[in-house]
Amino acid sequence: MTDTLLDSRNLAFELYEVLDAEGLTQRPRFADHNRETFDAAIGTARTIADKYFAPHNRKSDENEPKYVDGAAELIPEIKPAVDAFLEAGFLNATRTFEQGGMQMPNLLSQACFAHFQSANAATSSYAMLTMGAANLIEAFGNDEQKQRFLQPMIEGRFFGTMALTEPHAGSSLSDIRTKAEPAEDGSYRLKGNKVYISGGDHPLSDNIVHMVLAKLPDAPPGVKGISLFIVPKFLVNDDGSVGARNDVALAGLFHKMGWRGTTSTALNFGEKGECVGYLVGKPHQGLSYMFQMMNEARIGVGMGATMLGYAGYLYSLEYARDRPQGRLPDGKDPSSAQVAIVEHTDIKRLLLTQKAYVEGAFDLGLYAARLFDDTETLETEEQRRTALELLDLLTPIVKSWPSEFCLKANEHAIQILGGAGYTREYPVEQYYRDNRLNPIHEGTHGIQSLDLLGRKVAMNNGAALKQLSSLIQATCARASEYDSLNALREPLEKLHAHIGKVTMALLGDMGQGKINQALANSALYLNTFGHMVIGWRWLEQAVCAERGLANGKASDADFYRGKLQAARFFLTWEVPACHHALSILENRDDTCLEMQNDWF
Amino acid sequence: MTDTLLDSRNLAFELYEVLDAEGLTQRPRFADHNRETFDAAIGTARTIADKYFAPHNRKSDENEPKYVDGAAELIPEIKPAVDAFLEAGFLNATRTFEQGGMQMPNLLSQACFAHFQSANAATSSYAMLTMGAANLIEAFGNDEQKQRFLQPMIEGRFFGTMALTEPHAGSSLSDIRTKAEPAEDGSYRLKGNKVYISGGDHPLSDNIVHMVLAKLPDAPPGVKGISLFIVPKFLVNDDGSVGARNDVALAGLFHKMGWRGTTSTALNFGEKGECVGYLVGKPHQGLSYMFQMMNEARIGVGMGATMLGYAGYLYSLEYARDRPQGRLPDGKDPSSAQVAIVEHTDIKRLLLTQKAYVEGAFDLGLYAARLFDDTETLETEEQRRTALELLDLLTPIVKSWPSEFCLKANEHAIQILGGAGYTREYPVEQYYRDNRLNPIHEGTHGIQSLDLLGRKVAMNNGAALKQLSSLIQATCARASEYDSLNALREPLEKLHAHIGKVTMALLGDMGQGKINQALANSALYLNTFGHMVIGWRWLEQAVCAERGLANGKASDADFYRGKLQAARFFLTWEVPACHHALSILENRDDTCLEMQNDWF
Repeated sequence: MTDTLLDSRNLAFELYEVLDAEGLTQRPRFADHNRETFDAAIGTARTIADKYFAPHNRKSDENEPKYVDGAAELIPEIKPAVDAFLEAGFLNATRTFEQGGMQMPNLLSQACFAHFQSANAATSSYAMLTMGAANLIEAFGNDEQKQRFLQPMIEGRFFGTMALTEPHAGSSLSDIRTKAEPAEDGSYRLKGNKVYISGGDHPLSDNIVHMVLAKLPDAPPGVKGISLFIVPKFLVNDDGSVGARNDVALAGLFHKMGWRGTTSTALNFGEKGECVGYLVGKPHQGLSYMFQMMNEARIGVGMGATMLGYAGYLYSLEYARDRPQGRLPDGKDPSSAQVAIVEHTDIKRLLLTQKAYVEGAFDLGLYAARLFDDTETLETEEQRRTALELLDLLTPIVKSWPSEFCLKANEHAIQILGGAGYTREYPVEQYYRDNRLNPIHEGTHGIQSLDLLGRKVAMNNGAALKQLSSLIQATCARASEYDSLNALREPLEKLHAHIGKVTMALLGDMGQGKINQALANSALYLNTFGHMVIGWRWLEQAVCAERGLANGKASDADFYRGKLQAARFFLTWEVPACHHALSILENRDDTCLEMQNDWF
Repeated sequence: MTDTLLDSRNLAFELYEVLDAEGLTQRPRFADHNRETFDAAIGTARTIADKYFAPHNRKSDENEPKYVDGAAELIPEIKPAVDAFLEAGFLNATRTFEQGGMQMPNLLSQACFAHFQSANAATSSYAMLTMGAANLIEAFGNDEQKQRFLQPMIEGRFFGTMALTEPHAGSSLSDIRTKAEPAEDGSYRLKGNKVYISGGDHPLSDNIVHMVLAKLPDAPPGVKGISLFIVPKFLVNDDGSVGARNDVALAGLFHKMGWRGTTSTALNFGEKGECVGYLVGKPHQGLSYMFQMMNEARIGVGMGATMLGYAGYLYSLEYARDRPQGRLPDGKDPSSAQVAIVEHTDIKRLLLTQKAYVEGAFDLGLYAARLFDDTETLETEEQRRTALELLDLLTPIVKSWPSEFCLKANEHAIQILGGAGYTREYPVEQYYRDNRLNPIHEGTHGIQSLDLLGRKVAMNNGAALKQLSSLIQATCARASEYDSLNALREPLEKLHAHIGKVTMALLGDMGQGKINQALANSALYLNTFGHMVIGWRWLEQAVCAERGLANGKASDADFYRGKLQAARFFLTWEVPACHHALSILENRDDTCLEMQNDWF
């Protein structure tokens, strides 16, 4: 039977054959770990995901949160699932032993968390949001804030949210209007409205800690005037006990296409003028704090998109193996038995496309998680800074590529099931609906593309881009040891060279102040750059597969051959198709730029 | 204010500037028509669509049909809508005056029907299914069957379905098991199960006439042993009155991701051994009858996909014009006013892509409808046969291209609305869910691709393909009169030449018996061929727009410029990107063909 949660063999391949997870245990922080502790954690994650998260995934979709008397009501299955997750320690997997954590590499924590994301995107979100909010306080909060808010979050008693978006401004955080007035006791009084706040209300924890962006009275206009505040749902007494209700009202719930188990809320802060908030860090630095935590959140979104794609791939694979239908084009004898649809070439294409997308994205997500470990645990500051530069560069890809292409994978999963796939009797349509959120939240595609081309590739004189280029070249060098990989390596080298050329040209334009023109087709740049990155990761996987074929167990041969075929698919079908988009960028094509509102 | 149902100016452009609808009135059958009667019919369609179809589109989604005591219950708004449609005569728009029809060209009937499809895909389906079933009886039924079943369908008292699919066989009609045994009175007794039968039960009509594929006892195996039967829900007495319930049971309803207002049913025929059916035409000819009616149904599906895309495009355009957010990349002054998002280049890209897809598909759908008129009303049999050949060739494109690319358009519409687009408070997410059905029903994408490459392009020694090539060349010749169109024409010519070359090569392979190999990548062929066809239609639109700019009203200039920009987008961004797929076909790439089940 096909495993429909996450392919364990592939996870082991990633951790131990591609990303050298065991190598991390050489670092002091992870010295107490080894492959056995890693595998034990993964085993526990799988068990809890199977037992508590997967069973209510459909029910949660069919019974979305209800607004009752100013609060959000959830189905009863969510709390035991989240509790089991907390109890097993996954919320703090990466925190130190002193903090009550497992001192795990981020790589392993993401690998564990992937099981929950595959089993139930919505329920796992409550945990992810809490991790994000806790990390913000940990990084930028003062000791009292850590004592009062972070500690209960680590203990799983308080949950968290990120409250950025406002109704009139959407992605344009520069234009937020939520105000924070200083009060006499050193705290602040907030007033404003936030929308699409995930996890903004629920009965899963004793308290909810909102991390709110707002403006102080003396704030300069725009993004340089945004401050970050802790705004708890309930005030917290000096002894740590939960006190009176704060002036944060649940104005309503949004009714989403998918991802329904996670409350999406409209929150009103300070309707009565009594909304107490606490400034985090320095005034007007809120957005930069938020951005410093963004890498982690965006890896999380990318992995979430990946796991929805992965779940759909595995389900449709199982279906294709079990479902007899039709015959091959040259076998028209109607009295012969029908073949399993996995034998039809076009079904193989739909499966291979999914495999290439989801396993490519999965590799990249874990690669980014390991890079995150590097930013924290490499020996020298220079090394850590260099790792962070690369991670900053890759983050828009890590977030957006899976959001786009694993959604496409879900579309293919439905197609394999045909009419059945279009019904709610099967899970693939929910994956598709759930996944449609990912290109929107945590920075839309368009915003990721501006971030990549407008900021990241130029950072520090293109240092990160040069670093990435060296890594790609190193993989190509390793691949060139295998003649069998020439046909896979060459398209990557060609795309890499072409992107380099186009990047220089566009950066040159920006240097001359042609900002709008140079950024006009940034979405094409994002997709193409993404294909280069995923192509690189597939070539790396192919090298490891060749190594495995040569040295590994005979029983793994099929696994490695599948890897090589998916790499071949991605590098020879998809990667070479990117050059036309690059030529559009190269020609400074102004078709979209020059389109006028009145012409539509 | 933006029109969100269907752009009237664009419809007039199609009918009177591109497709010469007025020219049809020279033909005897349409002699009583003129532009005024056409426009009056369109006006009525718009009014009824606005008044009766659009208002319950969301409600119908939120309150899907219920299975109650063996019958399907619908929300009450559906019947008045369908009744208004019937009363206005749209069901029989193309039938003769003697039959009680309007003797309209199919082109105009499709143009009218497009309004209903845009306003409410699900409710309009009941009409479309009935038209399809009625046309089958009209073409192949005997006089008694026409009297007993067709006449009440024309009068709107009986509705129809197409009952093909069975649980164990899906698209493989060769393997259906439903049996039909001859009875003494010349009728038949059917026994079998059908699934995904749209409109298989509902309370909208006095009776439901199922057109059922089944096998006679002496049937040869496979598709050559399939016969077509009329199986009414209620028997019909000799005086035409509705009689006893036939042995057709509603086994259950499917719960779909979208398109929820249309019942999707599981039907059991002959549970008690008393299911009466009537053979249509000759034994064992059922599938060929069905296929002869397929062109019309597939145009209908393609137009349905198009109209969902169109509705999403127009809605997201209106939203983009109304919604202020952010500033242009070079205008970072946070104290300046936010711009409407339609001013952002990436939003223009998302809108222009939608416009290129939906208006390209809309043109093709109407072109096919006009071609359908040619198959019936051109003067000589030779001319009619030639038209039918071209329509047969284009049908897989007419069905599949909009299903794929107008779904993509809906994805973009959601993206423009951002978080709002992901909620059910806005209509675009429903369009996306509704549209996901279209690549599945009436022949999946994979099946369309085999039909195109495996049958259609080779038909009659490639006569239809040669005809299409001549038409493309003729459009290119017209376009070459405008220097401004050179950059649009050349990519089409290049793609056309490349497809010609690849087609010859693949047909050569098939001639040598390499069937599985030649058809292995047929899905790429379908998409690429589709882009050539839509590119051709866009170049034709561009020629008409240039003509309009030169000779038309000044107030139309913006409209024509928009057409030219969308044509430019499609022909310079999308068409040239197809060559890599063609090179995969050209190289007889076996990546998918050689992928093994065990390697996944």
